[in-house]
Amino acid sequence: MKSQFVEELKPGHTVKEIFLLTRKTRKDKKGGGSYTLLEFTDRSGSIDGIAWETLSADLKTVESGDFVFVEGTVNEYNERTEIMLSAIAKTPEKEVDPTDFIARSDEDLDQVMEEITTLIRQITNPHLARLTGLFISDKALIKKFRLAPAAKKVHHAYLGGLAVHTRNMMRLAAGMTSVYPATDRDLLLAGAFLHDIGKTHEYEYQKKIDLTTRGRMLGHIVIGYEMVESRISEVLDFPEDLKLKLLHIIVSHHGEFEWGSPTLPLFPEALIIHFLDNLDAKHEMMNDLLKKYKGTLRQWSDYHPFLEREIYLGEGS
Amino acid sequence: MKSQFVEELKPGHTVKEIFLLTRKTRKDKKGGGSYTLLEFTDRSGSIDGIAWETLSADLKTVESGDFVFVEGTVNEYNERTEIMLSAIAKTPEKEVDPTDFIARSDEDLDQVMEEITTLIRQITNPHLARLTGLFISDKALIKKFRLAPAAKKVHHAYLGGLAVHTRNMMRLAAGMTSVYPATDRDLLLAGAFLHDIGKTHEYEYQKKIDLTTRGRMLGHIVIGYEMVESRISEVLDFPEDLKLKLLHIIVSHHGEFEWGSPTLPLFPEALIIHFLDNLDAKHEMMNDLLKKYKGTLRQWSDYHPFLEREIYLGEGS
Amino acid sequence: MKSQFVEELKPGHTVKEIFLLTRKTRKDKKGGGSYTLLEFTDRSGSIDGIAWETLSADLKTVESGDFVFVEGTVNEYNERTEIMLSAIAKTPEKEVDPTDFIARSDEDLDQVMEEITTLIRQITNPHLARLTGLFISDKALIKKFRLAPAAKKVHHAYLGGLAVHTRNMMRLAAGMTSVYPATDRDLLLAGAFLHDIGKTHEYEYQKKIDLTTRGRMLGHIVIGYEMVESRISEVLDFPEDLKLKLLHIIVSHHGEFEWGSPTLPLFPEALIIHFLDNLDAKHEMMNDLLKKYKGTLRQWSDYHPFLEREIYLGEGS
Amino acid sequence: MKSQFVEELKPGHTVKEIFLLTRKTRKDKKGGGSYTLLEFTDRSGSIDGIAWETLSADLKTVESGDFVFVEGTVNEYNERTEIMLSAIAKTPEKEVDPTDFIARSDEDLDQVMEEITTLIRQITNPHLARLTGLFISDKALIKKFRLAPAAKKVHHAYLGGLAVHTRNMMRLAAGMTSVYPATDRDLLLAGAFLHDIGKTHEYEYQKKIDLTTRGRMLGHIVIGYEMVESRISEVLDFPEDLKLKLLHIIVSHHGEFEWGSPTLPLFPEALIIHFLDNLDAKHEMMNDLLKKYKGTLRQWSDYHPFLEREIYLGEGS
Amino acid sequence: MKSQFVEELKPGHTVKEIFLLTRKTRKDKKGGGSYTLLEFTDRSGSIDGIAWETLSADLKTVESGDFVFVEGTVNEYNERTEIMLSAIAKTPEKEVDPTDFIARSDEDLDQVMEEITTLIRQITNPHLARLTGLFISDKALIKKFRLAPAAKKVHHAYLGGLAVHTRNMMRLAAGMTSVYPATDRDLLLAGAFLHDIGKTHEYEYQKKIDLTTRGRMLGHIVIGYEMVESRISEVLDFPEDLKLKLLHIIVSHHGEFEWGSPTLPLFPEALIIHFLDNLDAKHEMMNDLLKKYKGTLRQWSDYHPFLEREIYLGEGS
Amino acid sequence: MKSQFVEELKPGHTVKEIFLLTRKTRKDKKGGGSYTLLEFTDRSGSIDGIAWETLSADLKTVESGDFVFVEGTVNEYNERTEIMLSAIAKTPEKEVDPTDFIARSDEDLDQVMEEITTLIRQITNPHLARLTGLFISDKALIKKFRLAPAAKKVHHAYLGGLAVHTRNMMRLAAGMTSVYPATDRDLLLAGAFLHDIGKTHEYEYQKKIDLTTRGRMLGHIVIGYEMVESRISEVLDFPEDLKLKLLHIIVSHHGEFEWGSPTLPLFPEALIIHFLDNLDAKHEMMNDLLKKYKGTLRQWSDYHPFLEREIYLGEGS
Repeated sequence: MKSQFVEELKPGHTVKEIFLLTRKTRKDKKGGGSYTLLEFTDRSGSIDGIAWETLSADLKTVESGDFVFVEGTVNEYNERTEIMLSAIAKTPEKEVDPTDFIARSDEDLDQVMEEITTLIRQITNPHLARLTGLFISDKALIKKFRLAPAAKKVHHAYLGGLAVHTRNMMRLAAGMTSVYPATDRDLLLAGAFLHDIGKTHEYEYQKKIDLTTRGRMLGHIVIGYEMVESRISEVLDFPEDLKLKLLHIIVSHHGEFEWGSPTLPLFPEALIIHFLDNLDAKHEMMNDLLKKYKGTLRQWSDYHPFLEREIYLGEGS
Repeated sequence: MKSQFVEELKPGHTVKEIFLLTRKTRKDKKGGGSYTLLEFTDRSGSIDGIAWETLSADLKTVESGDFVFVEGTVNEYNERTEIMLSAIAKTPEKEVDPTDFIARSDEDLDQVMEEITTLIRQITNPHLARLTGLFISDKALIKKFRLAPAAKKVHHAYLGGLAVHTRNMMRLAAGMTSVYPATDRDLLLAGAFLHDIGKTHEYEYQKKIDLTTRGRMLGHIVIGYEMVESRISEVLDFPEDLKLKLLHIIVSHHGEFEWGSPTLPLFPEALIIHFLDNLDAKHEMMNDLLKKYKGTLRQWSDYHPFLEREIYLGEGS
Repeated sequence: MKSQFVEELKPGHTVKEIFLLTRKTRKDKKGGGSYTLLEFTDRSGSIDGIAWETLSADLKTVESGDFVFVEGTVNEYNERTEIMLSAIAKTPEKEVDPTDFIARSDEDLDQVMEEITTLIRQITNPHLARLTGLFISDKALIKKFRLAPAAKKVHHAYLGGLAVHTRNMMRLAAGMTSVYPATDRDLLLAGAFLHDIGKTHEYEYQKKIDLTTRGRMLGHIVIGYEMVESRISEVLDFPEDLKLKLLHIIVSHHGEFEWGSPTLPLFPEALIIHFLDNLDAKHEMMNDLLKKYKGTLRQWSDYHPFLEREIYLGEGS
Repeated sequence: MKSQFVEELKPGHTVKEIFLLTRKTRKDKKGGGSYTLLEFTDRSGSIDGIAWETLSADLKTVESGDFVFVEGTVNEYNERTEIMLSAIAKTPEKEVDPTDFIARSDEDLDQVMEEITTLIRQITNPHLARLTGLFISDKALIKKFRLAPAAKKVHHAYLGGLAVHTRNMMRLAAGMTSVYPATDRDLLLAGAFLHDIGKTHEYEYQKKIDLTTRGRMLGHIVIGYEMVESRISEVLDFPEDLKLKLLHIIVSHHGEFEWGSPTLPLFPEALIIHFLDNLDAKHEMMNDLLKKYKGTLRQWSDYHPFLEREIYLGEGS
Repeated sequence: MKSQFVEELKPGHTVKEIFLLTRKTRKDKKGGGSYTLLEFTDRSGSIDGIAWETLSADLKTVESGDFVFVEGTVNEYNERTEIMLSAIAKTPEKEVDPTDFIARSDEDLDQVMEEITTLIRQITNPHLARLTGLFISDKALIKKFRLAPAAKKVHHAYLGGLAVHTRNMMRLAAGMTSVYPATDRDLLLAGAFLHDIGKTHEYEYQKKIDLTTRGRMLGHIVIGYEMVESRISEVLDFPEDLKLKLLHIIVSHHGEFEWGSPTLPLFPEALIIHFLDNLDAKHEMMNDLLKKYKGTLRQWSDYHPFLEREIYLGEGS
Repeated sequence: MKSQFVEELKPGHTVKEIFLLTRKTRKDKKGGGSYTLLEFTDRSGSIDGIAWETLSADLKTVESGDFVFVEGTVNEYNERTEIMLSAIAKTPEKEVDPTDFIARSDEDLDQVMEEITTLIRQITNPHLARLTGLFISDKALIKKFRLAPAAKKVHHAYLGGLAVHTRNMMRLAAGMTSVYPATDRDLLLAGAFLHDIGKTHEYEYQKKIDLTTRGRMLGHIVIGYEMVESRISEVLDFPEDLKLKLLHIIVSHHGEFEWGSPTLPLFPEALIIHFLDNLDAKHEMMNDLLKKYKGTLRQWSDYHPFLEREIYLGEGS
């Protein structure tokens, strides 16, 4: 992890750190000669930079969109803070920790994954236990799953968002049989765990969260269907009825045709997964606003364009 | 409770029981004279009846819509079962137990009410505790609450439906803080208990479930608001902020403007109550179908007009 | 094919033919003894039947839903035509031609399949040519494809409907490059051929057209995706970009989220397939009405519940 | 009322007046020292201000959001007009007339209130007459009613908007019996007068028009219901049927479930109030545009985002 | 007008009257020979008829759909009333008064037309006065206008419905300037008078109310546009701006794109006509229900499928 | 056509050309005196200009919105290119070629019109042939038709857009009978040619594309209806049925009530024209994006607000 973040840089600081270069513009000086204006970004924000002609050879080796290692000092000029550069060089992407550059969950993701694993171990149906075991023991997939976002924006749109959302869903799903005793707890747990598994391939999140081309073209419902269908075929004697039910949960979890769901939920466990998915997404939007305004004296948040309302923050929150 | 129900009557039985008279038609016999065709109904179904001219004086004292005490024997005629009457007389409504005539929950309603009471006792906030205590100790109200339906049709449309729905909501609400620790468990419990309290005045259910005129004109949201607002004024120093939040939960629990909600849910507890309300209603519709077809060999239910789908009943259900 | 159809049976005819038994009810005679009322169905309609006690042993071996071989004579009784049975026996399903029992296209399906094959042979892209070749040479699949309906009701809801709809789509798609020269004719042809291929598993159509359990649970979009994705993996070096485009056409062909499309069409060929699919379905509905009323003097059809309008049949049509 | 408004300030003027302070930013001078940039607002617009270090003690006592009494002179600098301050001090809110700071109706509000009173006096039903009399003689309420806006934006979003809108509704309602003789003129008048009465508590309008917390949480329908329900209980023998009808008019006046109406209008008077409410709101939006562009040569207004159209202003309007 | 209507026919009456023949079915008698069952209809209802073989020559000259002159006597048979025919003959359509066969307004249509004429005479703008004068003095058109229905069903679906609806609209429109003084009363009156003028060609109403082929194909908006546009060209120097405004009122009066309005209302008079049109239609639906149930003891109407609600009929209505 | 376009102007060029003057602002110089900043626009873009006081007499004769003939030289100042003016004078609109100022189709419009004419000549029905012949031989109309846009924005929003869109529709329509042999090719061709003919009067496009007042007030459906209806009356014995069908195609081509269609398409040819219209519009939007990004390395377009999606541009497009 980086030791210097943009939001902490104050006039007088010495900078030696990796940033994402997000602008590079060469400017002519009035009296002849030139200088270069830059912008450096990490997950905490952006800061301007300026480099004189002495660095022009180095500047030619870096482009907007590169990760760069920067040396310099922080100045204040015209009421704006900027880095006066003394050195700049490209950094290979593989040396960069994405959580330095994209906001990530403030929960401990190892603990989130552990809780997911614990809940999976509660599954008693041998076929569902074996199937979910195949997923949880696929290290490459779980590495992606642990950091994947659950959305590009609006809710759980940060590293670890998918894991946190899945963990919430599984906790909620696990409690359902105490109210609806006829429902199948194993199927609820497996469905909650796998309903969004396609998002591991729907998003990319090295420099910023974006949809992959495959994600845009097929969507996480179809990708997830394929991932689960393919793994089921590795489980001996997986019952056909159970297979259809689990795949149906993935295919129907958007719940309504107008939200692009190829089918409507057709039995109680599918209905429950759809509702919990929707609840957890909307709850997260509200909770984000409550956290954002915490400590201010405001009673009401700004307008939230997706929820289409302002949120009540409470009296003297 | 009645000891003879329509569905149990077989040819040869002697009948001495109260029914709801649902048809009375005088017919001319071909060879002169007349007879009267009747229909008797209770919560288990309807059966035809026939009475000869000898009973005509008694028949004049009863009308369709009356509760009647009937004596006679069960015959089979033209492949249909019917009661041959020997006596009929009107029964006062107050002597009738509505659960004999309208389907009621197959749960033990005393136990349901006990669970609701137990959950209310878990409320630690003193103002909410006192407020819910006022409701739970209002015997006339609780008597209505215990038997009220939660709807005229579609879901929980039976005696005790409101209590069962409320109990389900409270159970679900009680579990929310384990997933969303920042939410207020007391407010969730009180909100779940009171969100539909207006339905005690929205429905009448002596002979059949129907909306009251007040229920149609104002709706249970406004009626419930008034009931809770009025009781809050009896609690000393009920905090204004808490009052607004609790009343808001009642006012917003339909969740979307297009479902006639005067406001949208504006904080997490209101959002959760809305979602759980919706989930419990839809789950009940599906569960009703599963129970209805249990033991048949069907894989799919008939089309459900409200859910707009057939429900998967499982393989060899 | 059967030689006797219900609509041709007239009083006095001798019957020796297979029908679908669609009702079997035993009735008591007034003077003691019993008889059995039956209903026999084929694609042209239904006719009643009656059997005396002499056939009771045979009648015990058949159930409603069976195909049966019937012998008897046609009588007229009470203004209704019915078969007086002399013999009845169960017929194995495999000896039955489904086109005798479900309406089928009035086009020559061999010729329709030949035209589809001809259009597929026009594909010049080697990967698409090989892929579509794999499908067209899969005899078991093509046998299903040839007879499958394109819907349970509303449009192309008859045997051969899928083939006719696909052929129409391919013809329309083949003409698009003359107007939109930048579009890829091979992709349009392959997309038109495969867009509904999942319907071969979405429907069953032995006795009547119905959805399979798999069809209801997953839908033809997801089933079709899986079928094409799996076959693509058998084609050497199928380009990733082309694969995504073809799969996207299947996934997006419902065109709008509110029609359960997991994604919207994202490039011109996908847009065109969506539009042609919609056009061919709606055109078929109108054309069905024009054919149905042909020769009558009506100017207007009855109300069509899916099109939500009456159709103009023309002056003195 | 203020004697100096922003829009009248010209270079050279001497300023001695109350304004709303809407910005206060301290700036460092290049050569050391500092100055403060300010913004002063009233209902006619905003103007910049500048204050030197000599006023820094006074400046510390005022904050953005305060009403302030300002002394200074108007200068022109860099093509912009600004006030050069010589003194600034906070003014208590109670000494401020809100109509100086928020746009208000250009109608004479006393006359509007008088017309409302006159129309109320035409009510002949004794119970409705007494009820509306209670409202009209509640001086505190009428003071609020007279100045309240009818909305935060879009239509009647100015001081006096509620009174003007209510007066329009009452005039329109009064004319309805000439076309629909079976309708109850008294109920129409009382319904028009009271339908939006809850807005007196839904909005605050001291510095700008905004929703109160109670208004956001409950909405003016529920607040209005409570206000009228409570006053009805003060009228002796108010008939139950009339009470339900009047309360229903308030509860249903949004007219459609999708506009958050808890119930649909259920009898003609309720339907009429809903329609007139909608008409007066939309008419006001159009009329605002016509007034705004009056005297320009434009034929068409700019796009109106709520009406979703441009409005025709007429030829050479 | 007819002197005998179906609803007045009692056993023993002698019939000599015109009816619409709505069924004619020949039946075989058990003992050989045949008889003919018929159905006769007028605006008050339908009654069965029976004719023996002696009338078979006459019966061949009439078909279902013809107006017929019937002679016979009314019998009662099997609890049903029927006409025993002694003679039947076809009646030419031109000798038939449509108001005998289709329900008509219970208002005096001459008086309705007179009121419309009076309101038209109040128009002071010379061009609008001349234009509306051309319409009102076109006797053939006014004859159609006087009897035309305003709809096929739901509201004003009776003879005279268009005139009554237009009169209501004009009364309402005439009162608007007292509330909205900036609106043009002449334009409102002319717009109200002409907005639905196309319905004179959209409906036929000789035997029953139905859409004409032209009405279905083009709709009354386009037909009305054409009628008014063509008449405007007969008025000397009709101002272009006024012409556009009046035609726009016709074209936009459905008010919303989703109701098939080619444009939205673009100025206040067009907005008002749209609202009044909608109000009068919905009010009529409610008023119809109130009239239908008047005198019954019901508090609530049956469900109204277009209004999508039951209507409150009042206490002891 | 102009010989100098904005996008080609480089520092050092001498300018002598017509432009649209789109800004004229007088500025005071710090040291006294003034200069004028201008902006010159043509279809390729905009460029700034500067004029000293010596031109002030000429500058007074021109206004923003005028076409002007400009002389000067191109300078670079502060990294911006601008014209230093030596002369400026107003140019009459009639001397200006609109295609110099508004983007136009990159197709050869003469060739487009020729193809339309060729397709019209294929019409064999004598009445449709004569009718379309009347349109095609109306030189004033065809001159407008050739240059008219098909929309103000979104699709075909350029000079020649209507002709290109109509040609596409006619090509598509001409191919329909090969798939739907029962459809009337002549009616399809005439309908495609005339469906949008009203747009010749709906748009103005001298300086920029905008709606005419008549276009806004009536819409191209009603205007087109009137144009075709009026021409049909010039064709001897035009059959009534054919007239209704052709006019219906114009009136119904928006296809759905929610898109402002006065009627729904009521026969196959009307349905087809609606679908092709929609397809060609949406295809054009996608194709515009593909052309816009051609040669870039992007895989995905920016968000398209009307299509509500990003478009896939292909791999390394």
